[in-house]
Amino acid sequence: MNKSFLKEILKKVKSGEIEVDKAADSLKDLPYKDLGYARVDHHRSIRNGFPEVIYCEGKSLDEIEGIVAEMLKHNNNILASRASKEVYERIKKIAPDAVYHERPKMVFIEKNKLKKTKSKILVVSGGTSDMPVAEEAVVTANALGTKVDTLYDVGVAGLHRLLGSLEKLDEAEVIIVVAGMEGALASVVGGLVDKPVIAVPTSVGYGANFGGLSSLLTMINSCASGVGVVNIDNGFGAAYLASTIILQIEKARREG
Amino acid sequence: MNKSFLKEILKKVKSGEIEVDKAADSLKDLPYKDLGYARVDHHRSIRNGFPEVIYCEGKSLDEIEGIVAEMLKHNNNILASRASKEVYERIKKIAPDAVYHERPKMVFIEKNKLKKTKSKILVVSGGTSDMPVAEEAVVTANALGTKVDTLYDVGVAGLHRLLGSLEKLDEAEVIIVVAGMEGALASVVGGLVDKPVIAVPTSVGYGANFGGLSSLLTMINSCASGVGVVNIDNGFGAAYLASTIILQIEKARREG
Amino acid sequence: MNKSFLKEILKKVKSGEIEVDKAADSLKDLPYKDLGYARVDHHRSIRNGFPEVIYCEGKSLDEIEGIVAEMLKHNNNILASRASKEVYERIKKIAPDAVYHERPKMVFIEKNKLKKTKSKILVVSGGTSDMPVAEEAVVTANALGTKVDTLYDVGVAGLHRLLGSLEKLDEAEVIIVVAGMEGALASVVGGLVDKPVIAVPTSVGYGANFGGLSSLLTMINSCASGVGVVNIDNGFGAAYLASTIILQIEKARREG
Amino acid sequence: MNKSFLKEILKKVKSGEIEVDKAADSLKDLPYKDLGYARVDHHRSIRNGFPEVIYCEGKSLDEIEGIVAEMLKHNNNILASRASKEVYERIKKIAPDAVYHERPKMVFIEKNKLKKTKSKILVVSGGTSDMPVAEEAVVTANALGTKVDTLYDVGVAGLHRLLGSLEKLDEAEVIIVVAGMEGALASVVGGLVDKPVIAVPTSVGYGANFGGLSSLLTMINSCASGVGVVNIDNGFGAAYLASTIILQIEKARREG
Amino acid sequence: MNKSFLKEILKKVKSGEIEVDKAADSLKDLPYKDLGYARVDHHRSIRNGFPEVIYCEGKSLDEIEGIVAEMLKHNNNILASRASKEVYERIKKIAPDAVYHERPKMVFIEKNKLKKTKSKILVVSGGTSDMPVAEEAVVTANALGTKVDTLYDVGVAGLHRLLGSLEKLDEAEVIIVVAGMEGALASVVGGLVDKPVIAVPTSVGYGANFGGLSSLLTMINSCASGVGVVNIDNGFGAAYLASTIILQIEKARREG
Amino acid sequence: MNKSFLKEILKKVKSGEIEVDKAADSLKDLPYKDLGYARVDHHRSIRNGFPEVIYCEGKSLDEIEGIVAEMLKHNNNILASRASKEVYERIKKIAPDAVYHERPKMVFIEKNKLKKTKSKILVVSGGTSDMPVAEEAVVTANALGTKVDTLYDVGVAGLHRLLGSLEKLDEAEVIIVVAGMEGALASVVGGLVDKPVIAVPTSVGYGANFGGLSSLLTMINSCASGVGVVNIDNGFGAAYLASTIILQIEKARREG
Amino acid sequence: MNKSFLKEILKKVKSGEIEVDKAADSLKDLPYKDLGYARVDHHRSIRNGFPEVIYCEGKSLDEIEGIVAEMLKHNNNILASRASKEVYERIKKIAPDAVYHERPKMVFIEKNKLKKTKSKILVVSGGTSDMPVAEEAVVTANALGTKVDTLYDVGVAGLHRLLGSLEKLDEAEVIIVVAGMEGALASVVGGLVDKPVIAVPTSVGYGANFGGLSSLLTMINSCASGVGVVNIDNGFGAAYLASTIILQIEKARREG
Amino acid sequence: MNKSFLKEILKKVKSGEIEVDKAADSLKDLPYKDLGYARVDHHRSIRNGFPEVIYCEGKSLDEIEGIVAEMLKHNNNILASRASKEVYERIKKIAPDAVYHERPKMVFIEKNKLKKTKSKILVVSGGTSDMPVAEEAVVTANALGTKVDTLYDVGVAGLHRLLGSLEKLDEAEVIIVVAGMEGALASVVGGLVDKPVIAVPTSVGYGANFGGLSSLLTMINSCASGVGVVNIDNGFGAAYLASTIILQIEKARREG
Repeated sequence: MNKSFLKEILKKVKSGEIEVDKAADSLKDLPYKDLGYARVDHHRSIRNGFPEVIYCEGKSLDEIEGIVAEMLKHNNNILASRASKEVYERIKKIAPDAVYHERPKMVFIEKNKLKKTKSKILVVSGGTSDMPVAEEAVVTANALGTKVDTLYDVGVAGLHRLLGSLEKLDEAEVIIVVAGMEGALASVVGGLVDKPVIAVPTSVGYGANFGGLSSLLTMINSCASGVGVVNIDNGFGAAYLASTIILQIEKARREG
Repeated sequence: MNKSFLKEILKKVKSGEIEVDKAADSLKDLPYKDLGYARVDHHRSIRNGFPEVIYCEGKSLDEIEGIVAEMLKHNNNILASRASKEVYERIKKIAPDAVYHERPKMVFIEKNKLKKTKSKILVVSGGTSDMPVAEEAVVTANALGTKVDTLYDVGVAGLHRLLGSLEKLDEAEVIIVVAGMEGALASVVGGLVDKPVIAVPTSVGYGANFGGLSSLLTMINSCASGVGVVNIDNGFGAAYLASTIILQIEKARREG
Repeated sequence: MNKSFLKEILKKVKSGEIEVDKAADSLKDLPYKDLGYARVDHHRSIRNGFPEVIYCEGKSLDEIEGIVAEMLKHNNNILASRASKEVYERIKKIAPDAVYHERPKMVFIEKNKLKKTKSKILVVSGGTSDMPVAEEAVVTANALGTKVDTLYDVGVAGLHRLLGSLEKLDEAEVIIVVAGMEGALASVVGGLVDKPVIAVPTSVGYGANFGGLSSLLTMINSCASGVGVVNIDNGFGAAYLASTIILQIEKARREG
Repeated sequence: MNKSFLKEILKKVKSGEIEVDKAADSLKDLPYKDLGYARVDHHRSIRNGFPEVIYCEGKSLDEIEGIVAEMLKHNNNILASRASKEVYERIKKIAPDAVYHERPKMVFIEKNKLKKTKSKILVVSGGTSDMPVAEEAVVTANALGTKVDTLYDVGVAGLHRLLGSLEKLDEAEVIIVVAGMEGALASVVGGLVDKPVIAVPTSVGYGANFGGLSSLLTMINSCASGVGVVNIDNGFGAAYLASTIILQIEKARREG
Repeated sequence: MNKSFLKEILKKVKSGEIEVDKAADSLKDLPYKDLGYARVDHHRSIRNGFPEVIYCEGKSLDEIEGIVAEMLKHNNNILASRASKEVYERIKKIAPDAVYHERPKMVFIEKNKLKKTKSKILVVSGGTSDMPVAEEAVVTANALGTKVDTLYDVGVAGLHRLLGSLEKLDEAEVIIVVAGMEGALASVVGGLVDKPVIAVPTSVGYGANFGGLSSLLTMINSCASGVGVVNIDNGFGAAYLASTIILQIEKARREG
Repeated sequence: MNKSFLKEILKKVKSGEIEVDKAADSLKDLPYKDLGYARVDHHRSIRNGFPEVIYCEGKSLDEIEGIVAEMLKHNNNILASRASKEVYERIKKIAPDAVYHERPKMVFIEKNKLKKTKSKILVVSGGTSDMPVAEEAVVTANALGTKVDTLYDVGVAGLHRLLGSLEKLDEAEVIIVVAGMEGALASVVGGLVDKPVIAVPTSVGYGANFGGLSSLLTMINSCASGVGVVNIDNGFGAAYLASTIILQIEKARREG
Repeated sequence: MNKSFLKEILKKVKSGEIEVDKAADSLKDLPYKDLGYARVDHHRSIRNGFPEVIYCEGKSLDEIEGIVAEMLKHNNNILASRASKEVYERIKKIAPDAVYHERPKMVFIEKNKLKKTKSKILVVSGGTSDMPVAEEAVVTANALGTKVDTLYDVGVAGLHRLLGSLEKLDEAEVIIVVAGMEGALASVVGGLVDKPVIAVPTSVGYGANFGGLSSLLTMINSCASGVGVVNIDNGFGAAYLASTIILQIEKARREG
Repeated sequence: MNKSFLKEILKKVKSGEIEVDKAADSLKDLPYKDLGYARVDHHRSIRNGFPEVIYCEGKSLDEIEGIVAEMLKHNNNILASRASKEVYERIKKIAPDAVYHERPKMVFIEKNKLKKTKSKILVVSGGTSDMPVAEEAVVTANALGTKVDTLYDVGVAGLHRLLGSLEKLDEAEVIIVVAGMEGALASVVGGLVDKPVIAVPTSVGYGANFGGLSSLLTMINSCASGVGVVNIDNGFGAAYLASTIILQIEKARREG
């Protein structure tokens, strides 16, 4: 609890400007409001321009509509993930400016035009089948106002395509690597750069891939230092983590 | 391969300044040397002040001494991880200024005084038994020239200790969370901040911890966005990843 | 076998009040009837007001109707779990007063009005998607006559919501924590109270959640003492266990 | 934060009894102190007579001595778990009244004579090899002031021994079942009683027991309702959970 | 290869009774024909009255019809397992006397009336949901000519039902225990008898049952000696193994 | 409880031959004594000549001596498994006729000369390293009075050795297959015979054998019907199960 | 980069035959083009007659048509795997000469008549249900121009069928073993030959097969040397690996 | 059985050249001897110059000496794997020309000077710690008479070292990749060549490597076609498989 803020209230109590009862009421909930600065969704979106987010899987159409309606009141941007076409249709009814991204199954409502960051993320992906996850990362980055570039279809079985694009690796501040099957791409990219690499294992593969476990273990065991791993198929999480890094970089850029 | 550099050589060939054979020789290996900028160990340490690193586990005393001796020639800083006291004694013979950090089992040889970064990492740990891993992160950060602060013994079973130190979370640019047992600390911290959190599961625990698997799964499944996970007990890797983030922040700070 | 009861019979045999043959018959099955006090379904419901329970998954509509019809003869309350809407429709035909709880998929037939306990359970849940399991616990508690309160949507990624409701934790005698994803909520709640906490991992989550295994391991490894874990998604089991605790508390309250 | 307490302070501020600055200071830290009631170790032991606990595994002799010395200042009872004989010898030097329990490897220092509860736990165990874990539960219960009885060596392969002791099951308010190998005992006991059963899987067994995983899965999947599971070999945790239940029962007994 | 048989042929060769070429031909394939006594399907069914068996899962209707048609030529009994109703309809077209067992999804065509064995198997099962597997064992036993009795719904959570039927356990030569969830029934039965017990884990259960893995591990780790385990849901395999035991018993009965 | 036995007592009560109180006493414990026929260790050994068994792992030398001393009073045969040489030395002090089997680490005390069964077990093993487990089965069979033959070193990688010994497979009533690495031997043997096969996976192997899990899974999934599996390295259990089968066969032989 | 090729260019630069700028341009991309020889799909198919390959699972009909259309431009052979009938219909529209292999779900477009190799692969499979995978290997081999023979339905439970076909094992240069359930066939075949054996575990089986994990572990742990394993159900991969071996053999045959 | 060989014997029987009895004797065992051509150890070594092999782990010094002594009689080359220094000392006593390879713990006795093959294997390894496994492959290849080259320390985290040695990849007929940690190297190499790649996962690594499981899964899931996998740390098996490939290549080279 901020001391100067407290003193101000107390002074007003002393001077009779505020009644004891009303002051007690407002102070009572303060610590949690104070804590609340952390993650109260509305506050967060105001503070750093991040949108409000709904994870749609396992929620009914009615529930989703209700949540979106509530969110629309605050006029913030809204990002819905794992949203089927049906979900989109429903959201569109109350938010006609909602845009649907089909492959990553995301809906974005841009109430406030975002100014893109100067620093940038590069999303690198292995094969065509990793695309939905890669694009979940791209759409998320866009919705968070983070500049983002892509380098697709550069799996380790065709290394020359990756090596032919080294400049792209050079230009980004943070790199997200999306890869299924054996997930070796994270190590290869991690070995080529000295910047933060966020690895997203995907459930793409068959046989002993075991729903992405194989890629996850590969990436967690990466012999290349500087690689952090998020959950299987979690393109959203990777872009979110990358964006918190970019946020720190932009802040430093502004503040010197 | 840089075109202007190439043209320069070709012009010299044309003018006869360089012989065809010698030019061919130097061009032949260029692509790989060119790639080599990526991770040639000596070059990297020069470029960003990072030390050369040896992972000692599974190497004989003789092998370690050989590697250190080779490294000493380049006058770079040297960091040895998973180094027993015996390893330290051996290294000390050829590098009398080597310092031993007992709990995290690391040896550091600081040939060039490091200038600490302005941005900073905070290492948060759960219990006393997570300390060796937490300190591996601290010593690594120090060896990489990254400013680092600590917040120990704030496990989720005593939440008030963590909540009483919110300011520390505020002051750092990147947070490393080291936790064993059920590893819930990463989610709690991830929920309190909007900055990059790097989670290190530890093998501390008993019963169904299964050598850290439990903490690893907890952290990978974290419901808090913005959390990236490294391998079990990999304090080094966490600090390395955090430092690559700080590197980008510092660069932005310099360049604006 | 109760000795005084035995003596009474033997005396009647001696006095000729009961014939040897009839006495032998009634004694023959006694041990198992005696054991039977344990869990003979009808007896149990009489003894402590617990309803008779049917687990519907994997049973045909005909089988379920048959079991309910049989149970209705004893005029006890009946609770059907994992019951689809179809199952409900079928049950309703022979028990028109059956009530359907859609989210937790439970049917309750309250033949005898239950008197609620004085002590109370608090069901705490992490996210919206954990609601079906949380409500399975609530409906079960109600059907068992146990007073129950709820505290929903207080996941660890938004800790302030939990901290703002500490009083609820204070008021209950037993706390059930329902949480998916990484399941950290059980440890956080377990660290805030000194009362029995029953943790229910849910299969909510994606990627490396592996059908609830991740939450299960987290909860089993909880660094907070005083946490007992039931099976994944087993809201019924948690409420049942909690109710046996409340039963003991109520008994002590009555007996002093 | 308690409103009446707040109002009292505010009134004193208004009346000039307390200075604004001092009031601000005391209010500033209040929320966390307020939270602190939860688990500040010393406070907890005062509140309910529970001892302070040290988990010794992975701590050095010096660290353990330091912690015990610190704890001794508050004159509370102290319980050290997973303590080798060496650990005991060291503790004894500064606490000559420390008692060592060899099989469960626990040290207990009883500074304040405990008054045993009226309600009671029954610790049931399968085979001779489960004894260390069973006795960890017994010693813990004793150290927490909880009355405890035992029923050993009643594995399911010799069911008659269990069935011959049904009265013991009847007399206890909470039952702890300790079992390794296939862990079936928990289900059998759970099927015989209508009271809380806490199951402790042990790592006893060989072959496909996989360090207790087999027993853990068996117990978590128990077909008997009313069974909660703690970590493998965690006799301490089971007794702790059981004691929080007994605490609620005793409170109800006192308060009616 | 039988020496006396060989000598006979050789003598005929010597005497000119058989030509060298023809003898060579018949000897050439002998070793494999000789081996062939082992499991050539038709031969086996002749030898011990066992039917020919088709595992239908993963085979097309056409393939199944083809196999059955081929088998019908030898006039043996035929047993089809994992057969959907559709499969049955198809088989019925070419084998009008085929009988369908709906719950265990088996088709039996009894071309030769089987004489039941004197010794007998008892199939014990835990809950209603284990019935399909239990009945797969029963139908298989019947098809193999093995006498079979049943004891259903005697799960460990209601031990009295099992204890009330000890005579049935006494009367059988081999016992098959079918149980899902935690699979503890196998240990309990194994502890009550001194005869071969064959345990069949079922995939019945939810949460951490993991498709039967939990029951499988429980049964493999059984603390009761004399328990052999077959694959999850493999009622057929259990009855087959039991029948090979009965075969040896019957042979001993005949031969003395 | 036997009805005729009950009637006899009741008649005596009626006639005054037995006093009510004494009759009540003797009836009170009857059900459990009745159950007790099942597995009271001494009774069992009397009934079928089986020895009393001690599993030594995890028991102290004193505990083992105590148990053996107690057992010696009943003059039964005694078999101690997983017994180190030290254990043997200790047992020998109080039982000088104890014999030590070094490879399988078993001690046998033959108080009553056993008469071997007519039917016989064949123990088949894969490689030299499976020998300790194979011999645990052999010594156990011997101690149980079961005739036993062996066929060692016939792993599937050298099939001709197995095929050269088909007669041995023919002569036994029950076959035990002991195999590590990939455990394929059980399927091969199971495919060659139509008699009960008991498979013992061993922990022999390296790499992805995972302590016997690989062999266990292989054997449980055997495509050959008629194979039952016991725990990893559990030679004792296999021989015990095989001996209960032989017991039934011998009984049939006697009774016809 | 090839030195002689480089010298040639440099000489031309020196002589003025090529302009500096144009030479620089062509050299600039050379390293990656040079690397590109490795796996640029078109080049590869030209070099060794291998077709271009599309893995259809997870790709939309439109995407697949697009890729095939692109591939058709180079007039190479095209092989599509995991192709549903629908996929085939779509491909057929733009490639009327496409042939569909129903069981292994593969489409082959043979633009250039392949000349079969002299050396040959033998595909051995266990049961009828392994056929789709076995035929995926056969069709792949055919599409790669590799001669291929088959030996189906020779599972270890009917060893005589395998032993009766030893000549087929003799005639092939490389053997592919396709087997599900317990996968023992690979070891048996590996023990019969001294030539490369490629093992393909299949997901055929039930119960504890765990989607092929059981067969995979069996094959990886094979006690027979000379066995290499590919992914579960990966008939394509096995045939591809086998064909690279045949390629080397044919090359040696040509070159001597 | 060879028909012409049979006819020859039969003719001799007819002519009286061989007696019926003696012929019967020799024919009796023929089928197994015939099969025996497959893997009778001595025969194999004669046929293709392969040495006899002993796997020493789990064998006593006496057993090993016995086996070696027996083998020495046939004057073949002998290779002992997993041999400690102690084992070597013992072997040396009876085979003074035995050579010890310390890192891979192998003993080789070269009784017959081997002629190296023309084709060659390349052993590629990731890090220093993979060396023991890599050298096990090298020593094995040498002992089998297979020419072998090495390319060490080319892990994916330092890709330039691998790319700088593409010629070595070009020159070999078969490539063995030895890699621990995340095992990505196999995919990278597999993507660079069109020749058989044999991947050996090693148990090198820490944390979530789980004794090599991580590398094993990575390699099995390799997105590069043409990769076959052997067991964890099984350098011997890889070299053996590679050598059977080379054998086929050499044969083709000779025969054309």
